Amino acid sequence: MSDVFLPQPHDATAINALRFLAIDMVQAANSGHPGAPMGQAAMAYTLWSRHLDVCPSQPSWHARDRFVLSSGHASALIYGLLHLSGYDLPLAELKKFRQLGSKTPGHPEYGHTAGVDTTTGPLGQGLSNGVGMAIAQRVLAEQFDREGFELFDHRVWVIASDGDLMEGVASEASSLAGHLGLGRLNVLYDANQITIDGSTDLSFTEDVLARYAAYGWHTVDVTDGNDLEALDAAMREATADPRPSMIKVRTHIGFGSPNKQDSSASHGAPLGEDEVALTRENLGWPHASFEVPAEALDAFAPVATRGDAAFAEWAALRERYAEAHPEAAADLSRREQQQLPEGFAEALPRFSESDGPMATRKASGIALNAAAAVLPELLGGSADLAGSNNTDLANEPFFSASVTGRNFNFGVREHAMGAVLNGMALSGLMRPYGGTFLIFADYFRPTIRLAGLMNLSPIYVLTHDSIYVGEDGPTHQPVSHLAALRAIPNMVTLRPADANETSAAWKVALERTTGPTAIVLTRQGLPVLEAATVERFERGGYVLSEAQGEADSILIASGSEVSLTLNAQAALRNKGHNPRVVSMPSWELFDAQDAAYREEVLPRNLRKRLAVEAGHPLGWERYTGLDGGVVGQRTFGASGPGGDLGKHFGYTVENIVEQFERLG
Amino acid sequence: MSDVFLPQPHDATAINALRFLAIDMVQAANSGHPGAPMGQAAMAYTLWSRHLDVCPSQPSWHARDRFVLSSGHASALIYGLLHLSGYDLPLAELKKFRQLGSKTPGHPEYGHTAGVDTTTGPLGQGLSNGVGMAIAQRVLAEQFDREGFELFDHRVWVIASDGDLMEGVASEASSLAGHLGLGRLNVLYDANQITIDGSTDLSFTEDVLARYAAYGWHTVDVTDGNDLEALDAAMREATADPRPSMIKVRTHIGFGSPNKQDSSASHGAPLGEDEVALTRENLGWPHASFEVPAEALDAFAPVATRGDAAFAEWAALRERYAEAHPEAAADLSRREQQQLPEGFAEALPRFSESDGPMATRKASGIALNAAAAVLPELLGGSADLAGSNNTDLANEPFFSASVTGRNFNFGVREHAMGAVLNGMALSGLMRPYGGTFLIFADYFRPTIRLAGLMNLSPIYVLTHDSIYVGEDGPTHQPVSHLAALRAIPNMVTLRPADANETSAAWKVALERTTGPTAIVLTRQGLPVLEAATVERFERGGYVLSEAQGEADSILIASGSEVSLTLNAQAALRNKGHNPRVVSMPSWELFDAQDAAYREEVLPRNLRKRLAVEAGHPLGWERYTGLDGGVVGQRTFGASGPGGDLGKHFGYTVENIVEQFERLG
Repeated sequence: MSDVFLPQPHDATAINALRFLAIDMVQAANSGHPGAPMGQAAMAYTLWSRHLDVCPSQPSWHARDRFVLSSGHASALIYGLLHLSGYDLPLAELKKFRQLGSKTPGHPEYGHTAGVDTTTGPLGQGLSNGVGMAIAQRVLAEQFDREGFELFDHRVWVIASDGDLMEGVASEASSLAGHLGLGRLNVLYDANQITIDGSTDLSFTEDVLARYAAYGWHTVDVTDGNDLEALDAAMREATADPRPSMIKVRTHIGFGSPNKQDSSASHGAPLGEDEVALTRENLGWPHASFEVPAEALDAFAPVATRGDAAFAEWAALRERYAEAHPEAAADLSRREQQQLPEGFAEALPRFSESDGPMATRKASGIALNAAAAVLPELLGGSADLAGSNNTDLANEPFFSASVTGRNFNFGVREHAMGAVLNGMALSGLMRPYGGTFLIFADYFRPTIRLAGLMNLSPIYVLTHDSIYVGEDGPTHQPVSHLAALRAIPNMVTLRPADANETSAAWKVALERTTGPTAIVLTRQGLPVLEAATVERFERGGYVLSEAQGEADSILIASGSEVSLTLNAQAALRNKGHNPRVVSMPSWELFDAQDAAYREEVLPRNLRKRLAVEAGHPLGWERYTGLDGGVVGQRTFGASGPGGDLGKHFGYTVENIVEQFERLG
Repeated sequence: MSDVFLPQPHDATAINALRFLAIDMVQAANSGHPGAPMGQAAMAYTLWSRHLDVCPSQPSWHARDRFVLSSGHASALIYGLLHLSGYDLPLAELKKFRQLGSKTPGHPEYGHTAGVDTTTGPLGQGLSNGVGMAIAQRVLAEQFDREGFELFDHRVWVIASDGDLMEGVASEASSLAGHLGLGRLNVLYDANQITIDGSTDLSFTEDVLARYAAYGWHTVDVTDGNDLEALDAAMREATADPRPSMIKVRTHIGFGSPNKQDSSASHGAPLGEDEVALTRENLGWPHASFEVPAEALDAFAPVATRGDAAFAEWAALRERYAEAHPEAAADLSRREQQQLPEGFAEALPRFSESDGPMATRKASGIALNAAAAVLPELLGGSADLAGSNNTDLANEPFFSASVTGRNFNFGVREHAMGAVLNGMALSGLMRPYGGTFLIFADYFRPTIRLAGLMNLSPIYVLTHDSIYVGEDGPTHQPVSHLAALRAIPNMVTLRPADANETSAAWKVALERTTGPTAIVLTRQGLPVLEAATVERFERGGYVLSEAQGEADSILIASGSEVSLTLNAQAALRNKGHNPRVVSMPSWELFDAQDAAYREEVLPRNLRKRLAVEAGHPLGWERYTGLDGGVVGQRTFGASGPGGDLGKHFGYTVENIVEQFERLG
């Protein structure tokens, strides 16, 4: 970062280059959002050319500043920034904006385009990811920095739109950021007064800066979004302030377009050839479509110059660090390679029958603590249900404004928790987890989906997983939630049947690096199943209790219904039937097995099949077919003691026997 | 409401009666939340005895004030209030707190217990429902009030907890309420500084009143939550102020418990017999468990006295209104009976082939406007996507701080939109709808579930329903969403195949009164199917195109894949196969048909079945079985023109033929 603001001769050219690249990309695709990039160009240029410490040749450098374009519809802006700053994003890719197979999709996608630090588009998420990124910076500094070795000293910069600030997830995350005093987080708020439906006067007239001041943020008002000196001063002020900063930047959507500036007409559609020509004239831009003048590249050159120097300095520091602090350096290397420590699996607990009955949430807390003892990258907490979710790490401090620890009080903010977990995971060096009741998975579902899309691997600890919640009643009893989670791509949902399957679930979750994992757990105690081994669990479904001789039918169950189904098997035997019992903790893991194994567990010719799960039957027919049945429920729960509810909803040996005998 | 505050001799007895009823209920159930009722008792008593205009003998009176216990875990408080005020909730029900079949479930449930105005428990929802209730009051006054006939002059009172105010949905709804100037909304914020995990200092240190001032609310600070005079003055002030009011009331959780006051120990567990005895002693309460002294009933008597008088006055006014304004009175009666006007169905459009291709979102806009022309109770809007969702009502004003209309700009606030729709629906006199992209159904999913639980019937207009969204890319392309919606009890999900099925979908949605309906619509144009009649659509699945002679197989599709599947049928015929094509717009409607009809459409012995839907296949196996197949996708989408994506993901005649021929 330069120490004083000096206007550069090519500033205007660089800013207009960003604007016209965006205009041209959208025009070429005949689809996209030109207005926001045109309005945000000056703040983005000021940030990138003077403040942002990134290294275009090392886009995944773990200690880089993060840039989050929370207003992801302005994707043409970030592609312009990446191209002009020297990232591996040639003009040819910009010309394929929004085309299948290009590096320039409609909204920025992490893992798809080098230099994109998070996937944005669904509003409110990027800013909230930024909160997680700022937390990650503090944790990494705490875990790795040593005297003379400031390895993790980076900042998080966000550009957010009116829409981001209307979303509840951003409100939750911002309140949390203020509470935690995350001074490394700076937000540039693109206040252009326009949303898709028209002026913000239609729906959004609150005093945003006063709200952020109430959250405990530092606030700045930049009244002219094209005033580079004022923008630079605000960024300096934000960097200096120990609180998170909200910089309101008054901009003009579609800046420079004679007929569409300050209008929602420039938000989500190409300007059109005629208007593009008028805009070229108006802004004095003599260049052809996608033509980038050398002056624009010159103006962006400091990004790479500064970045290469910073990265080289960091790499050298890292080498000296390896000598001075070999253990910490080895841990960092291991985490960079997404490796688990040797012997990690052995640290996880095995349970025996005499440990039961034990709620799987309790077993989860034991397994989590065992894992955390050998995995410093494992960190997380609960959305104000830590005692119920068993998510606290023993003997670890809680992360607060003054203390950096691995335990988190997320508050009653499930959606922010999900987004923060994504931000932490995006550090590439952390394994975050978050707990709440399964019923509240709906509250942060958008973030689960984004974790799947980004191939991030946060772990969700979702307890109180059925009507067995009991007295709290139907408001707190999940019915649709398992089915809904199982429909999310790249996600693995695990519903362990006992303490041993729970321990195995943690192993599976921690070994995953390509998407999120939900561990779905009981409130109530369950018998411990000694036959539930890790190896069997990892296949997603397995024969837990074989028939006597050749099976004539199959009972399939998950979670708390597995031990119930074992009892039903015994009752059915007494009535002359001979079913096997399959424990099926994970559809995704089972479906990933080879055909031979799946045939072994669920032989194709064995059509008499009954699945048992305390939830909506939707999807179980994949395993039970047209001739089978499902013991589940299509209705909401009720308030009463769990045992009473189990009987009421038919989760009994008697009902399983009856439903079984109704099958053909 | 009395004009001046006069302390009553039995105030303290009444407040302690509320406290001890809550303590005793939780103790009897050995489960529940005593602390919040103990802290909230004084404000609740002040509100009910002096301000709230309700009529215990007419709990569903449409012009009553609404009372929302947003902190639903404090349910024992509302049961106490209802009992003491003379609602039909005898002590015997209080003694069955949290038992199966009782009127006193763990969290208050609308429709289950007379006097409960909305279902609460999931935090943030009640307050946000209150915003919808306050909107409903203004709309009802606008639609029905005439000079000399103020029929709808009620207010909405909410008790909210720290947890409610941490939830993003409440932030969104509160910002909207400030914007819309909803002066009839008054919130009592139970600031007890304690959440489940401990002190709010752990996670929630923002300045709540400053935040609400930033939203444009009137704010009041009551520093002693047991000071009835101060509480009364604050409620008066709130009533007088034209803005929504946030009254911060500093309380003590577990007030009166010597060892558990101000501690999270009193939040979610019984106090225990010993501590109950100590609390009795401490608060000077000589009465036995569940014993209610006459003085307490006396103190609450004004609720019924005032309510009976107010209701009688209103009923008389209503009679005179029927004479003076017979048409409006008839409309009100019709709406009270949840009847649609005669000839309503005829108002909906029919389309012919020559109208196509037409996007179903466009047909939806036409059908919606046709319906709105004959249904004054139909009102709604979009979460800042009105132009894309086709949700605007032509020639209707937009609801704002100064204008009361049937069009709403909800802003980029999907979650609040869902909760506000629930609040509007709770008026019993409105049919609200809300639009956004299907992808953002995840953002307001908790409110869909609550609509289902409450048997409310808002309508969700969910456009851009698959990878055919195109260039916006995977961030905006739903894959899991249909499956996830179909798993919600009491919900009907409709995915119409063309303009005619879309018109029929509106008929089905508007005729439903027992749960929410989602109408899932395309961005892209589709051929119009003249064979798609209302009668066929209403059965959920029907043979759209019969096989030639006896069918040898079945193709099943929904939405945009129906016309594709018709093309595949032709191609398969050319290859010697003879499938029928079933259009299946709604699983729920189809499953509700009798067995004979279902057998007619999907004959049990016809096992060669292929379903086609641009989404996750989860659940389709219910209809395709172990021998069938599904053309769908288990992966996220991609950015590119919709046509390219259709090919890429296999939604082509060629792929359908190939997948069909792979079946046994």
